[in-house]
Amino acid sequence: MDLQGDDLTGAVVASFDHSTDPRTKTVMSALVRHLHAFAREVNLTEDEYFTAIDFLTRTGQISTDTRQEFVLLADVLGLSMLTVGLGNPKPPGATESTVFGPFFVEGSPEVPQGGDIANGAPGQPCLVSGRVLNTNGEPIPAALVETWQADEEGFYDVQKELDGPQNRGHLTTDADGNYAFWAVKPVAYPIPDDGPVGELLRAGGRGPMRPAHIHFMVTAPGYARLITHVFAAGDEYLANDAVFGVKDSLIADFTEKPAGTPAPDGKTPDQPYYTVHYDLVLATTEETQ
Amino acid sequence: MDLQGDDLTGAVVASFDHSTDPRTKTVMSALVRHLHAFAREVNLTEDEYFTAIDFLTRTGQISTDTRQEFVLLADVLGLSMLTVGLGNPKPPGATESTVFGPFFVEGSPEVPQGGDIANGAPGQPCLVSGRVLNTNGEPIPAALVETWQADEEGFYDVQKELDGPQNRGHLTTDADGNYAFWAVKPVAYPIPDDGPVGELLRAGGRGPMRPAHIHFMVTAPGYARLITHVFAAGDEYLANDAVFGVKDSLIADFTEKPAGTPAPDGKTPDQPYYTVHYDLVLATTEETQ
Repeated sequence: MDLQGDDLTGAVVASFDHSTDPRTKTVMSALVRHLHAFAREVNLTEDEYFTAIDFLTRTGQISTDTRQEFVLLADVLGLSMLTVGLGNPKPPGATESTVFGPFFVEGSPEVPQGGDIANGAPGQPCLVSGRVLNTNGEPIPAALVETWQADEEGFYDVQKELDGPQNRGHLTTDADGNYAFWAVKPVAYPIPDDGPVGELLRAGGRGPMRPAHIHFMVTAPGYARLITHVFAAGDEYLANDAVFGVKDSLIADFTEKPAGTPAPDGKTPDQPYYTVHYDLVLATTEETQ
Repeated sequence: MDLQGDDLTGAVVASFDHSTDPRTKTVMSALVRHLHAFAREVNLTEDEYFTAIDFLTRTGQISTDTRQEFVLLADVLGLSMLTVGLGNPKPPGATESTVFGPFFVEGSPEVPQGGDIANGAPGQPCLVSGRVLNTNGEPIPAALVETWQADEEGFYDVQKELDGPQNRGHLTTDADGNYAFWAVKPVAYPIPDDGPVGELLRAGGRGPMRPAHIHFMVTAPGYARLITHVFAAGDEYLANDAVFGVKDSLIADFTEKPAGTPAPDGKTPDQPYYTVHYDLVLATTEETQ
């Protein structure tokens, strides 16, 4: 008895010796060592301990099917990007990964090639197109492209009271690997900061802004799933993303076209619009091992 | 851009440079460094990341006014005892601290000296008495003694559907520092294991049991608050407490007396009962600095 200091840490680590699988033992013993090292380094006070208990409790309690505050917390602490980097080794030429974020929803609407996912969301129309390719530059037909993004006011559909989805959908690539859909031009927006994560950002003297981006999740048999964003070139928050998600290779030009200009897909919008073209390059399962 | 590895950790640490107070910067930068070091050491997978997100979310969501699952989590990871040790330096002779636990409730009933806090809880009667003293052995009159404990079935009142409190109360010491109350003989019990913490214990091959104990929180003007337990000598779980809370100096003898034996307070119970005597020694505020 009388466990304290290193003896206490050792006893807690040893308590996981009979874990039902070896990975649990590995992860939990490392977690305990690092958690205790943190508390010792800062000489964590009991007040701070209870503040943390209250913070984490509220972070769980504000989470719902459409708001994941713990993902947001992991995002602003850089843990999401760190895990993305650890879990997604990429061969040269493959599109890089970035954070998944808290706003993906299962069961998005299917749209045809060239279809409109905006579904009335406020914003300037934007034709998003490109190809899904392998690292040899060959097209991947029938790849599943899931996409989601915020509107011109900076909100995802699940943050608003709506009858149906907006700026969210999925489609499959054609025989040449092409995908194309209409959405709205994304804008920089603040991550939800009315909860515990917002409190943390304010205490940290940090801003909540993310640079404008479109989310993609691309899957195809034989290939490693790609979760990434395409960021808008020139955005003022590219170097200051609240979740540390920007990579240079994921920045693309969103080109403004005047009303009446024919778009690449043959449509001629009667208002100004944007186009962006970005090829999504998947690594095979073998290439990522 | 293109933050990864040490650059990513450095950027997240630097993001707290403008914290509203220096302590926030100190704590958050250490937290980020240790959290990232943990993820890197175990090469945390994305599946494990999402498992952790789900686990923490459910830990928040199962918590209520009378169940604090994050305290329980901190307890089984030894973080509570570590923080107790860091925050409560004790001069020689002062009673040691242990975990607060998740079952304290504000606003317990006041009981007179020698009163009964069991209030019908199942268990063998137990007279709990002692003195509250300073480190010179002098009595502290009018010290506030809060006490709470589980019943013979291993449950705290807040774990049951009851109209009023059981085995929970507060009283003040008399002019000689004495306290005395009747409760029930505590027994070893499992911490609540029907939630996320129970899942973790099972995955870790760990048991949920705590040795029998009575909680105390003692306050008096000019003295550091004491939060501790008195453990029952001979309990089979003393060396294997699920929350690592046992200290040798906190173990006391619970002595069984036959029915009809006069108790130290003059009562003569008509059933077998226990007595335990334990002096609670407070350090002054100065002694703990």
